[in-house]
Amino acid sequence: MSSTALPTHTRQWHLTHKPTDLPVLSGPHPTFTLHTTPLPPLTANQLLLKTLYISNDPAQRGWISPLIVPNRLYVPPVPLNTPMRAYAVAQILSSTCTTTTPSLSVGRLVTAPTNWTEYSVLDASAVQPLPEVPEVSPTHFLGALGMTGLTAYYGLTQIARACPTDTVVISGAAGATGSMAVQIAKHMLGCRRVIGIAGGAEKCAWVVAKLGADACVDYKAGDFRRRLAEATGGYVEVYFDNVGGEILDCMLGRMKRDGRVAVCGSISSYNTEGSDPGVTLRNWFDVITMRLEVRGFIVLDYLHKAAEVTGLLVQAMREGKIVVGDDNETVVECAFEDVPRTWMGLFEGGNTGKLVTRLW
Amino acid sequence: MSSTALPTHTRQWHLTHKPTDLPVLSGPHPTFTLHTTPLPPLTANQLLLKTLYISNDPAQRGWISPLIVPNRLYVPPVPLNTPMRAYAVAQILSSTCTTTTPSLSVGRLVTAPTNWTEYSVLDASAVQPLPEVPEVSPTHFLGALGMTGLTAYYGLTQIARACPTDTVVISGAAGATGSMAVQIAKHMLGCRRVIGIAGGAEKCAWVVAKLGADACVDYKAGDFRRRLAEATGGYVEVYFDNVGGEILDCMLGRMKRDGRVAVCGSISSYNTEGSDPGVTLRNWFDVITMRLEVRGFIVLDYLHKAAEVTGLLVQAMREGKIVVGDDNETVVECAFEDVPRTWMGLFEGGNTGKLVTRLW
Repeated sequence: MSSTALPTHTRQWHLTHKPTDLPVLSGPHPTFTLHTTPLPPLTANQLLLKTLYISNDPAQRGWISPLIVPNRLYVPPVPLNTPMRAYAVAQILSSTCTTTTPSLSVGRLVTAPTNWTEYSVLDASAVQPLPEVPEVSPTHFLGALGMTGLTAYYGLTQIARACPTDTVVISGAAGATGSMAVQIAKHMLGCRRVIGIAGGAEKCAWVVAKLGADACVDYKAGDFRRRLAEATGGYVEVYFDNVGGEILDCMLGRMKRDGRVAVCGSISSYNTEGSDPGVTLRNWFDVITMRLEVRGFIVLDYLHKAAEVTGLLVQAMREGKIVVGDDNETVVECAFEDVPRTWMGLFEGGNTGKLVTRLW
Repeated sequence: MSSTALPTHTRQWHLTHKPTDLPVLSGPHPTFTLHTTPLPPLTANQLLLKTLYISNDPAQRGWISPLIVPNRLYVPPVPLNTPMRAYAVAQILSSTCTTTTPSLSVGRLVTAPTNWTEYSVLDASAVQPLPEVPEVSPTHFLGALGMTGLTAYYGLTQIARACPTDTVVISGAAGATGSMAVQIAKHMLGCRRVIGIAGGAEKCAWVVAKLGADACVDYKAGDFRRRLAEATGGYVEVYFDNVGGEILDCMLGRMKRDGRVAVCGSISSYNTEGSDPGVTLRNWFDVITMRLEVRGFIVLDYLHKAAEVTGLLVQAMREGKIVVGDDNETVVECAFEDVPRTWMGLFEGGNTGKLVTRLW
C-alpha cells in the first residue's frame, strides 16, 4: 500500500453462532462469518490502524459462550453479528491526534483491541504504544511481555503469594501463561523448586531444558498420577492452575497444609459446555483437611501494574533470567480468511507458548 | 453407684473394620465391636471419668476412612482395634491431682476425649472443666457453646470474613454447625441478609422461625435451583459450606465478584468413598470469572480462641440473641450397646441441630 492510498473498507470476522461445543468453521451454523464493511471517517483523536499480529487466547472461548449469563463474565460477551473480540499489534496508518506524541505517530506500532479486522478506527486512548525494545519482536508485547506475562506474575505474586521457600507446580507449563509462570517462579521469585505439568515428552523436555523447571510431568503418560506424586513427594505450597479438570483434582491431593491454588484457567472444559461433565474433584476433602485456599483471578484487576511489571520482565529478559524468544510463541502466518482456523489451534494442543497470528 | 465402689473395668467400642461406604453394625465385617477391658490404675495428676454425654460429629466419619493417607488428615486416623475416638461430657469419679482446683474436684463435669468408653482414665491436662452456667444443659458445651459454635464463629469471622454489608448463605442450616452459623451471622455479626439451605419444609420453617434466617431454601424440593436463584437474586458475598456436592456447585453460580466460600464440611460424600463420584462442579468457571476465594478450615486451628468465643456465645445467649435450647440439639438416650447405632443417625438426616448421645 502506498502512503496515499488509505483503505476505505475492511474485512471482519463476525460472530454468527455461539458454540456450545467446539466452534465450527463451516456447515449451516458457522461460528464465524466473513464480512466486508466501510471504515468510518476519523473524528478527533482517533487512529486508523492496520492489524499486523492477532493475539489468540483461550479466554476468547468464554467470550462467545451462549451459556454465560451476561453479568457473570469479567467482560461483556461478544454480541452476535459483531466482530470477534481480539487484541492485536497494529500499525498506525493515519491519525487525528491533536497532541501528537512520537509513540503515536504514523508508522508506529501499538497494542489495541482491533478485533478480527484488517483495518480499524479506534480512539487513541484505547491503544497502548509499544515500548521501544528493539531486540524483542513486537509480538511479545501481546504475550510474554504483555498480558500473558502479567497474568503469570499476578497469579504467582498476588494470588498464590509464592516465595523462595515454596515448591510451585504449574500446569499448562508449555503454554503461553504457564511458560512465563515457570520462568518467573524459578528465576525471578527464586522459588525453591518449580515443577511443570505438560502434555507429551517433547513439551516436558522443553519446559525443563529451556524454561529451567526442576521437573516436568507428562499428563498424557499412562502413569501420570504416580509420577506426579513422585515429583511432588514432599507435597507443595503452591499450584498455579491453568487447566482445571482432572489435573486440578490430582493436585488437590498434593498440596501441603495451608497451600494456595491460583485458578487461572480451565481450558479442559471450554469446549464441552453442551454436554458439560463439569470438574469432578475426588480430592475435594483435601480443601478442608489441608486448609487450602483456592482463588480465581482475572488479570484485568491488575492492569494498573502492567507498565511496571512489563518493565520488570524486560529487565529480567535482558539479564538472561527469562527467555522470550521464539520458544515462547508460535507465530502462524496466514491470510485474513484463515484467522478463525488459526485460532482453532488453541484447542488442538499443538502450539508451544503463545499462539500468534501474523497476517500477510 | 456408691462412692466407694469405683469401676475396675469398662466397656469400649473398638474400630474393627474401616468402612468405604456406610458403616455397618452387623455382618461378618462390622465397623465397630464391643469389648470389655480393665481400667489402668491412676498415676499422678489423672482423673477417672464416667462418660455421661457423647458428641456425635460428621468429622468422625473421616477419622475412620481407609482411604485417608495418614498425614493428609488434620488428626491421625483412628487405628484399628482401638476405641472409637469421640468427645464427651464426663463426670469426675476419682482424682490424683495434687494441685486440686475446685473445677476438677470429684463430682464436677468436664469435656474430654473419652472415646466410646463407659469409663476412662485421662491426664487432667487433657480435659476442660465446664464453665458454670447453671441455666444451660452441659450438653451444649459439646455443641452450640463448644466446638460447634467455635467452628461456626471461626468460619464466618476468620475464613469468610462476613460483615454487616454481606448477604450470607449457609447450607446444612438446620444442622449443628449450620444452626449456630445462621444465628451468629444474623444476630451477632449483623449480616444484612442470612439465607439458609436445609432439607425439608419443616427444617426450613424452623431455620426461619427459630434461628431468624431471612429465608431458607429446601434442597429436597424439585425446583431447588430456581428457588435458590430467587432467594439469592442479587447474588451473595459469603457462602458457608457445610455439605459440598451439588449445593456447593449451585452456590458457585450465586456468588458475587470477590465472594468468599468457607468450606467447613462435605458430608454428602462421607459415605460414598468406595464408589466416590467426587464433587462435580459445573460452575467451576465462576471461581475464575468472579474471582472467588474458596478456603477450607479446621476448627482445631482456632482452639486458642475457644474460651473467649465461648464467653461471647454465652453472653449472646443471655442477651437473647442466640438460642441454644433443645431446638439446637437432639439428645438420644441409649444404652452403651447402642452407641454406634445412635451415631449412625448422623447420616440419616433425621436430627435437628447437634446429635448427642446420653448414656443411661
